[in-house]
Amino acid sequence: MAEYSIGLDLGGTNLRAAVISIAGKVLEKISVSTNPTLGRESMLGEMVTAIDGLRSRWGTKGLAGIGLGVPGFILLKEGVIRNSNNLARRLGTRFILENDANAAALGEKWMGAGREVDDLVLFTLGTGIGGGIITGGKVLHGFLGMAGELGLLTVVPNGIPCGCGNQGCVEKHASATAVTSMARTLGLGENLSSKEVYELGMKGNERALTIFRCMGEALGIALATVVNTFNFPLYLLSGGVLGAWDLFAPVMLEEARRRSFTLRTTNTRVEKAILGDEAGLYGAAYLPWVEKD
Amino acid sequence: MAEYSIGLDLGGTNLRAAVISIAGKVLEKISVSTNPTLGRESMLGEMVTAIDGLRSRWGTKGLAGIGLGVPGFILLKEGVIRNSNNLARRLGTRFILENDANAAALGEKWMGAGREVDDLVLFTLGTGIGGGIITGGKVLHGFLGMAGELGLLTVVPNGIPCGCGNQGCVEKHASATAVTSMARTLGLGENLSSKEVYELGMKGNERALTIFRCMGEALGIALATVVNTFNFPLYLLSGGVLGAWDLFAPVMLEEARRRSFTLRTTNTRVEKAILGDEAGLYGAAYLPWVEKD
Repeated sequence: MAEYSIGLDLGGTNLRAAVISIAGKVLEKISVSTNPTLGRESMLGEMVTAIDGLRSRWGTKGLAGIGLGVPGFILLKEGVIRNSNNLARRLGTRFILENDANAAALGEKWMGAGREVDDLVLFTLGTGIGGGIITGGKVLHGFLGMAGELGLLTVVPNGIPCGCGNQGCVEKHASATAVTSMARTLGLGENLSSKEVYELGMKGNERALTIFRCMGEALGIALATVVNTFNFPLYLLSGGVLGAWDLFAPVMLEEARRRSFTLRTTNTRVEKAILGDEAGLYGAAYLPWVEKD
Repeated sequence: MAEYSIGLDLGGTNLRAAVISIAGKVLEKISVSTNPTLGRESMLGEMVTAIDGLRSRWGTKGLAGIGLGVPGFILLKEGVIRNSNNLARRLGTRFILENDANAAALGEKWMGAGREVDDLVLFTLGTGIGGGIITGGKVLHGFLGMAGELGLLTVVPNGIPCGCGNQGCVEKHASATAVTSMARTLGLGENLSSKEVYELGMKGNERALTIFRCMGEALGIALATVVNTFNFPLYLLSGGVLGAWDLFAPVMLEEARRRSFTLRTTNTRVEKAILGDEAGLYGAAYLPWVEKD
């Protein structure tokens, strides 16, 4: 039996799990719908049932451990983590929690766009913006696991208020939610997806193009910030808004190049992530091998 | 003979050197004035002479190596570094170059305000603003040694132009040079030092107080950025402008707390560095022990 690991990705409405070999081959993948309104115990029960099923099929002997990606450090600190030792006991194996954007960054490093480097930064562009920082092949956590909160970087000092208490956070100016909100403000429609705004832009709609210019400028400032801070060889972007790459990325890159001597003068790569939704599963599965106790 | 190392700090007008034991005790310290207009070869000659003198007094047997802090990555890449292998050969020992702000951060970690942590960020507030990032007890370099350029973080997207090509870099809004420039703009005087502006502020001069408020706000944005990025336990400030701490630090901390959920909700420390000018010497001397080949 080859060594394998189980990666879990806990989203808002479903739990996905993958059995992945140490060589990075996906052996099995399942998805279970979850109902957060039923509470944590119910969710944990579903998780244990899913894991038990996978282990009964793939055996416990080769299992290196189980990794779980969850959204947000709040949940990490106050929610699931309180039960993680219990969970590990119930499951009889190592159980490692990770922020979902960190897990995605680790997945891209292991089996995605970052395979050839040991240091990278990933921005996840979804309803919010998340960040994951990989250094020396491992997730940079900070002392409480709160590092990499790159969606909260200030890019417009007097910008849009954010639930974090700040204003002008990059996620308030460059996420899918921000695109929808700008489209509403400009009278393009009440609840357009970033894809719909993108399609309007591709048809030449000036207001849609303005939205992606604003998004690109905001992202460009955040990108210059991390390039000047880390001087890593690779910066990745992932998430649903990537579909609009052609409209925001040129502005983002121009803005970031203008604001970062390091970006202009070195062969720093800024690229799309390649694993899509699977990045978090790969990263979670990789945790038992990369995170030593 | 106890093990020791030699730390060098190459400033604009002088070369300082310290013989420091592995326990962190300064055994000898010298300062040699340098004349940059005589060119690199002359400077290297002075350096070698100074080192030879120290080695003849302290012996070659216990010498772990020689570390050198130099301003800027430009010099690192194109100036001294070309000769570093030659230098190592001429000196018959390990010779390690480091950016001066990185060396200062490492010094504070080894023997200064960061002794009890393995992860910290240092801002040096002088004529410019430099940054040094220590993670796992070592300098974060990035792939070309350009990491930690924290003086170039954008804090005012449409702010003052910077030689790096950007505008609104924190060093254009919060360095000693920025204080002097703002004092000139406000008619306080043509070439006031930050100390003189501080003294005006302490006497209640409103324009001087405005200058330090602006400086504090700019620094606060940069501080929030690194806190949200790293979640390290400790952030240090050093350099000549520290004398004005009472006038800028309260504004800086308020601004950073407003902009960083992490700073508000965790016991993150923001403090003055304690080694002053010696930080760079300590850090340089520590390099042979901390930087493995």
